[in-house]
Amino acid sequence: MTKPKIVVLGAGYGGLMTVTRLQKMLSQNEAEIVLVNKHDYHYETTWLHEASAGTLHHDRVRYAISNVINRSKVKFVQATVENIKPNENKVVLNNGELDYDYLVVALGPESETFGIKGLKEYAFAITSVNAARRIREHIETQFATYNTEKDKKEERLTIVVGGAGFTGIEFLGELTNRVPELCREYDVDFQKVRIICVEAAPTVLPGFDPELVQYAMEQLQKKGVEFRIGTAIKEATPDGIIVAKGENETEEIKAGTVVWAAGVRGNSVIEKAGFENNRARVKVEEDLRAPGYNNVFIVGDCSLVINEETNRPYPPTAQIAMQQGVVCAKNIVALLKGQETQKFVFDNKGTVCSLGDDDAIGIVFGRKLKGTKASFMKKVIDNRALFMIGGLSLVLKKGKFKFF
Amino acid sequence: MTKPKIVVLGAGYGGLMTVTRLQKMLSQNEAEIVLVNKHDYHYETTWLHEASAGTLHHDRVRYAISNVINRSKVKFVQATVENIKPNENKVVLNNGELDYDYLVVALGPESETFGIKGLKEYAFAITSVNAARRIREHIETQFATYNTEKDKKEERLTIVVGGAGFTGIEFLGELTNRVPELCREYDVDFQKVRIICVEAAPTVLPGFDPELVQYAMEQLQKKGVEFRIGTAIKEATPDGIIVAKGENETEEIKAGTVVWAAGVRGNSVIEKAGFENNRARVKVEEDLRAPGYNNVFIVGDCSLVINEETNRPYPPTAQIAMQQGVVCAKNIVALLKGQETQKFVFDNKGTVCSLGDDDAIGIVFGRKLKGTKASFMKKVIDNRALFMIGGLSLVLKKGKFKFF
Repeated sequence: MTKPKIVVLGAGYGGLMTVTRLQKMLSQNEAEIVLVNKHDYHYETTWLHEASAGTLHHDRVRYAISNVINRSKVKFVQATVENIKPNENKVVLNNGELDYDYLVVALGPESETFGIKGLKEYAFAITSVNAARRIREHIETQFATYNTEKDKKEERLTIVVGGAGFTGIEFLGELTNRVPELCREYDVDFQKVRIICVEAAPTVLPGFDPELVQYAMEQLQKKGVEFRIGTAIKEATPDGIIVAKGENETEEIKAGTVVWAAGVRGNSVIEKAGFENNRARVKVEEDLRAPGYNNVFIVGDCSLVINEETNRPYPPTAQIAMQQGVVCAKNIVALLKGQETQKFVFDNKGTVCSLGDDDAIGIVFGRKLKGTKASFMKKVIDNRALFMIGGLSLVLKKGKFKFF
Repeated sequence: MTKPKIVVLGAGYGGLMTVTRLQKMLSQNEAEIVLVNKHDYHYETTWLHEASAGTLHHDRVRYAISNVINRSKVKFVQATVENIKPNENKVVLNNGELDYDYLVVALGPESETFGIKGLKEYAFAITSVNAARRIREHIETQFATYNTEKDKKEERLTIVVGGAGFTGIEFLGELTNRVPELCREYDVDFQKVRIICVEAAPTVLPGFDPELVQYAMEQLQKKGVEFRIGTAIKEATPDGIIVAKGENETEEIKAGTVVWAAGVRGNSVIEKAGFENNRARVKVEEDLRAPGYNNVFIVGDCSLVINEETNRPYPPTAQIAMQQGVVCAKNIVALLKGQETQKFVFDNKGTVCSLGDDDAIGIVFGRKLKGTKASFMKKVIDNRALFMIGGLSLVLKKGKFKFF
């Protein structure tokens, strides 16, 4: 008798949570578990803004997958997923093919550029460890180059952040802490540096509590951020960006660095595979299965779950991905045992948006927090994610602590 | 009665040695001493290859001028020298003018590109702290970018060093130590990195002892350097370099980084000022004065002193510049007191060429050295330069020590 084969694609929050739960619930004889990931490490997507700004080394943001999987139960395959053939129970990798009895699609998102010209070519997106350290080095090179040129290009010291959502604001918080260090390192006058946040929506952090939003904006402005709210980016160029101004006019903002942090979509493999989707996200069944496929689960950024209170999708977060991972693992085990699957219900424990190492805003268990308290809660949340996937030993190894 | 005014241009080895000796030999009432320098810091030109490779932080390579001058005797002016009018006893600065009774020209060199197309635009030169940290960051950005691109450009990991003279070889020594670190930092396969040294002359380190040259080449080759000796660079392009191949052919070497380390000339201010010169270097009189001007001394890289044994000019080094500074200070004091000036005689104590932190070749007091011993002597030489200018306190602050 052959064991049922469970293939999990992606070692992000959702995928890794699924695998670590499965390896606890199943014995070696009950199933073959295969985890596929592009890199041999997991990275904390929610910490990438720190690595991008250069305030936290990228090795602090990642850990080896081998640290958290039980290799007697889980086989790890390092590969890029190129396609899924759900009607054939097959996954196409860059270096071969895999068949499966149960599939968990937990692939990471891609940057959503909404068709804005030049963004793909000239803007950076905070999407991976590779991308993060490239942003860090690009900014550093701009500062390093500034003093070497006879005709000083002030725009080298201008950093545009497109988007004042969660990622944009958190990145700004780190940047404002990093810039004074860069000024010292490269003998650059702090007054010459500009950090501009351009947001098309009429507010920063849409949907967040207005009092906290106000606080966040003021804190960032104090540290030098200029906000251009209600301003749409029309185009990115090698020299910066072009934004809308009034009805028909445009304005050029010259910038040595443009970071696009205004949106993500699901993974394009979802589209290629032919799942019914909306911007590469699949509106999953109640038990997280893909409509039409009773052996395919989708968790994390490629899945779409509707918040019944607001009738709008929950934003893709690490929190929801991890909760999905837990339920997904349970449901696979249920199917293996011929039991009923359970419904996924998101339990929103709150959201904290960091404004740098020492400041944050957030709502946790329904309570508004700002400043040091919120910042402390953010670190608790970060450590909790480590704990849920890798237990105490991972928290001790990679956790965020502040010893006063 | 007004005090005679001594103006020293440049706070490199020659200028700073002149000033620190003058401030010891003269009382406040005997002369007004003015030191002009572009930056408010001195940097160790002979250590810049380390900062460029990223093996030594640039703050270790420089110190504040205020640390070594006696401010009750020396006035420091931070300015760029734009011209000298030796017939009017005037110096034109970017922010004003200065007149003088005695002038010491100790300005730094410029990169000599021998008219090779594209070198100025597309190649880096190891000329200053600003330039060094830009090279460091440029190389690091190439490594950081490599993994972010779908179509990998192997040439990002190729570093061409133009010139196998002193600077080129010392830079290669540091680079070969730095590259493995960069590979770890950016998850790059060491096998994909290429370090190519292109030299037009038929040998590495022309003029150096052949046995030591052989050793240096072998050590660097072991660490991955490819030598292209007897190969002339024809052009630098945005993509790399074009070299001569045989009689009429050329070959392109694609490289993300090209560092031109094949030559320096004097400062272009020398040419503008109208001194008789050869590549912006002035063949000075025996007592280091500029021909035709009995109140202008030239020391360091803008001066040219003939080695009477070989009838060729001594290469410009920190060693000769510092010895000139000592004699220059003495001669100015002699002139102030109506005494005779003395002849400058270079006392060659030897030369050590570093091959990284732990290896070197050299001839010191006539003895051939290689490996650890030579490397130790190199550190002694580096520390001696600090001692001569800033005494023991500067050695303790900025010196190079290795505690076993």
